[in-house]
Amino acid sequence: MAQGAAPLRKLAEKFARMPGVGRKTAQRLAYYIISLPAEESKALADAITEACASIHRCPVCCDYTEGEKCAICEDERRDAGLICVVEQPQDLLAIEHTREYKGVYHVLHGAISPMDGIGPDQLTVKQLLARVSSGEVREVIMATDSDTEGETTAMYLSKLIKPFGVLVTRLAYGLPVGSDLQYADEVTLSRAIDGRREM
Amino acid sequence: MAQGAAPLRKLAEKFARMPGVGRKTAQRLAYYIISLPAEESKALADAITEACASIHRCPVCCDYTEGEKCAICEDERRDAGLICVVEQPQDLLAIEHTREYKGVYHVLHGAISPMDGIGPDQLTVKQLLARVSSGEVREVIMATDSDTEGETTAMYLSKLIKPFGVLVTRLAYGLPVGSDLQYADEVTLSRAIDGRREM
Repeated sequence: MAQGAAPLRKLAEKFARMPGVGRKTAQRLAYYIISLPAEESKALADAITEACASIHRCPVCCDYTEGEKCAICEDERRDAGLICVVEQPQDLLAIEHTREYKGVYHVLHGAISPMDGIGPDQLTVKQLLARVSSGEVREVIMATDSDTEGETTAMYLSKLIKPFGVLVTRLAYGLPVGSDLQYADEVTLSRAIDGRREM
Repeated sequence: MAQGAAPLRKLAEKFARMPGVGRKTAQRLAYYIISLPAEESKALADAITEACASIHRCPVCCDYTEGEKCAICEDERRDAGLICVVEQPQDLLAIEHTREYKGVYHVLHGAISPMDGIGPDQLTVKQLLARVSSGEVREVIMATDSDTEGETTAMYLSKLIKPFGVLVTRLAYGLPVGSDLQYADEVTLSRAIDGRREM
């Protein structure tokens, strides 16, 4: 048992497959779970089972939800003519935390990445186009990541959406608020100069 | 549902309580689990249940095991007169990976830390003393961490064990192998000088 007991190893291997979890962290998590009182480890297993059983994608925006539609799509105070397109459900949460945005969302569940074999068919692009073609949408904000995959995805979707006569916008690039100008990278800084606004 | 669906939030909260897992990582893990195919998420929940049901502490060395005693304590080729005392089961694995050590172990499941309210009674000190008092033990190697808690624990145990006429040793301090001398901290370097050996 120089490698630890088999069920422990099996559990650690499952954690090691998760994003951002290395071999050491996976081992630490497995040992932590073993050390929990029986009712707490059972509660964890139950939470996994329950979450996976009760949660599915909203048929409109593709975010995860328990109800038939998600709360944002159900909410009549939200502006259904304004769609913010994000890569991941976590991105949606980040925008909601600003408490500024009053439109609705569309979750792609990824970004186009030929290197990883992810094309538009693996994303929720069809559902987005169906929404845009309904004629009720005024503007689509591309809030994909500002990396290569996010940019590619935003460009690709923009070309598909514009023919419907819908305004397509992109989040502003510039200096992060509260940051030190001297440490900004050149690309960010030149984008901030390009996007300067009158005070 | 601006905070994400409730079962997702509940799952993320459970992960956030684990050691070394922050709020963002916990959220990422919860979303990852939700995105798994049903059979994989079930396998994860089952792995947790199985590990917690089948694993207990070895009655001799207190390491985790599936069998009655752990494989190392069962192994007659191991030198039962030499006990290596470690804080955590993971420390035992690290020493086993060296393939150098042929003795047995004792897992304390922590270190003495008055700040965290952990005294000798929360550790497996009693079981260690029972083994030492049996008269079969020749040497005890203190392989606790080289931080304050580990040092305190090693000192405390050493004082308890020596009266039994057993040799108590401590792992060597010095430069990590393959390291750059100029980057060694002063304490490590002065310990390395103190502990110098003839070539």
